[in-house]
Amino acid sequence: MSVTAPRGFRAAGVAAGLKADGARDVAVVINDGPSRAAAGVFTRNRIKAAPVLWSEQVLRGGRVRAVVLNAGGANACTGAPGFQDAHTTAERVAEALEDSAAEVAICSTGLIGERLPMPELLAGADEAIGTAARDGGLAAADAIRTTDSVAKIAFKRGSGYTIGGMAKGAGMLAPSLATMLAVLTTDADLTAEQCDRLLRRATAVTFDRIDSDGCISTNDTVLLLASGAAGTVPDEADFAALLTEICDDLARQLVNDAEGASKTIAIEVVGAAGEDDALTAARAVARNNLFKCAVYGEDPNWGRVLAAVGTTDAEFDPDQVNVAINGVWICRGGAVGDDRSKVDLKPREVTVTVDLSAGSDAATVWTTDLTVEYVHENSAYST
Amino acid sequence: MSVTAPRGFRAAGVAAGLKADGARDVAVVINDGPSRAAAGVFTRNRIKAAPVLWSEQVLRGGRVRAVVLNAGGANACTGAPGFQDAHTTAERVAEALEDSAAEVAICSTGLIGERLPMPELLAGADEAIGTAARDGGLAAADAIRTTDSVAKIAFKRGSGYTIGGMAKGAGMLAPSLATMLAVLTTDADLTAEQCDRLLRRATAVTFDRIDSDGCISTNDTVLLLASGAAGTVPDEADFAALLTEICDDLARQLVNDAEGASKTIAIEVVGAAGEDDALTAARAVARNNLFKCAVYGEDPNWGRVLAAVGTTDAEFDPDQVNVAINGVWICRGGAVGDDRSKVDLKPREVTVTVDLSAGSDAATVWTTDLTVEYVHENSAYST
Repeated sequence: MSVTAPRGFRAAGVAAGLKADGARDVAVVINDGPSRAAAGVFTRNRIKAAPVLWSEQVLRGGRVRAVVLNAGGANACTGAPGFQDAHTTAERVAEALEDSAAEVAICSTGLIGERLPMPELLAGADEAIGTAARDGGLAAADAIRTTDSVAKIAFKRGSGYTIGGMAKGAGMLAPSLATMLAVLTTDADLTAEQCDRLLRRATAVTFDRIDSDGCISTNDTVLLLASGAAGTVPDEADFAALLTEICDDLARQLVNDAEGASKTIAIEVVGAAGEDDALTAARAVARNNLFKCAVYGEDPNWGRVLAAVGTTDAEFDPDQVNVAINGVWICRGGAVGDDRSKVDLKPREVTVTVDLSAGSDAATVWTTDLTVEYVHENSAYST
Repeated sequence: MSVTAPRGFRAAGVAAGLKADGARDVAVVINDGPSRAAAGVFTRNRIKAAPVLWSEQVLRGGRVRAVVLNAGGANACTGAPGFQDAHTTAERVAEALEDSAAEVAICSTGLIGERLPMPELLAGADEAIGTAARDGGLAAADAIRTTDSVAKIAFKRGSGYTIGGMAKGAGMLAPSLATMLAVLTTDADLTAEQCDRLLRRATAVTFDRIDSDGCISTNDTVLLLASGAAGTVPDEADFAALLTEICDDLARQLVNDAEGASKTIAIEVVGAAGEDDALTAARAVARNNLFKCAVYGEDPNWGRVLAAVGTTDAEFDPDQVNVAINGVWICRGGAVGDDRSKVDLKPREVTVTVDLSAGSDAATVWTTDLTVEYVHENSAYST
């Protein structure tokens, strides 16, 4: 179902020859309206791929008729010719839909620094538009996979409307959006301003809180498209909650499928003097290679957790920090706590709780362990 | 020679039983004067080991009679009892030297979160003081090794004086000092204020610019001890240059021996609008796991270099950044440059040059690749 769960949307995923293995690699999501309100959030990396530069312009208009997505090439660091390629793709899609290129968003993922094979991509876009259908959501989600082992989709029903979504991303996952593409759709009737506000609120506590390797991509894009086909003007708080659930679901799917990971780690920071402090501390732990290696080795090395927290400016007293791993408080008051042999690190899901004893705020960041497989996968990516 | 190359110093390294394999694990460096001016720089991690807290107090006095160092335990996150252990050790050494504990510095390295075996440590300190000699520099450097595969020593002669040094550190190497212990000695006649100024100047451009894994230790300590035994008041600029050479030599030895590394990578950022910009950009590349994996795979993946630089606030225009790997400018103007197949990544030494085209400042950070061996070594450290 994914992006086609809400009414008003068609989608397709086709094999255009961009991936060497002949798998699906070009997708479209088409909003047939009646509304086409939309919003987007994009990478905060200053090196932005051509499709990001293009789509940022499109989203400034607050309307999206269609999104074209491709795997097999990021179209990043490709200069003016790469931007022209994005423009050409949008024009081709607009022509096929008898619409305006200014309302066609583009998302790309794959290797940085190479031009896209335009004849294949354009033919793929034509084919995708020609075959786009109400049951095309899963094929679209499949087409945007790179090293993702599974397609990521989600949908939920609200009061008189539905929200759907698809996402991809398995490496280069870090806040400022994880390296990822996601398209969220709804048949609720929303203005572009509402889309923007709701999308920012939802991504800030979901996609922005996963961090597999601290690396921020050039291509991150999350789009929200509203067709209005359900004819429902939703209660904004209800919609926000449901959208956050969908984003959270997709974000967790991304972390669970992160490149080479053997553990999914929730870093919960509690007792913080503010939410920013909690987030800062959680991210420092999530990016600490030594700690991530220890989890891979099923070693409850709380000293590395403390050493990571100690690099931040979060408010805490070193003698009052407590750390639990999978519920066992192995560090109390900044020193040895309960017996570390009680910590069971065999399950895939690991929870690290850091109590800063400085207040009552909390935040959680999801990350993964650092494994031999991660190194293998990322040492052989472009060769 | 190491720390005993300058006159006025004795040292020893003994096996006290702190390391499971029976290797040397306790060292002393004794300054017999006539002067005992000294300075120290310490970790900027807010979680500071007990020996750091102790030695910071000692160095506030600007005088050091002796340094006791141990491997086999960091005495970090050990609370008040751990601090008392450091105090007790200093008292014991002071007693043996008939001197003041307030002039005995302590350095420890090893696992975080465990108390030191005090009977063994104190007996080792006694033995080390009893056997300290003018030829003990190498044994002392050997005793402070943890996962270091070799002892790191250096010395150089100036005009009428000598500077010597030893260091340890192989993981958790990141600015704010790499995770390391280093003791530098000189027989030049310097005031404590000069020691402090000269040490800060030298470490800022050497130890502070190596970064193996972005992890900042709880125990980093670099000490400079001046005996005045040569009777020479040095030209400060000459001394600064020589001390920087020694620190640079030791810092490079640390990077070359970093845990599990197969490549030593110099990240040179040139054309920066300021030295801070150059450093920020170089550090971002040095900490990018994806790039470090690519170097391990001998893949000249310049896109990952750009993506790392793009996460910083350094001044640059994405369309004017150039990147060379081992002298081949494979990225020009933010896009594809020379043929990447011309890059030879087989040698251990790798140089990445990033030209920001924004000014005339430059800085270099040394790092290593991210390897399967690094993950192995750090997933099995405390178990």
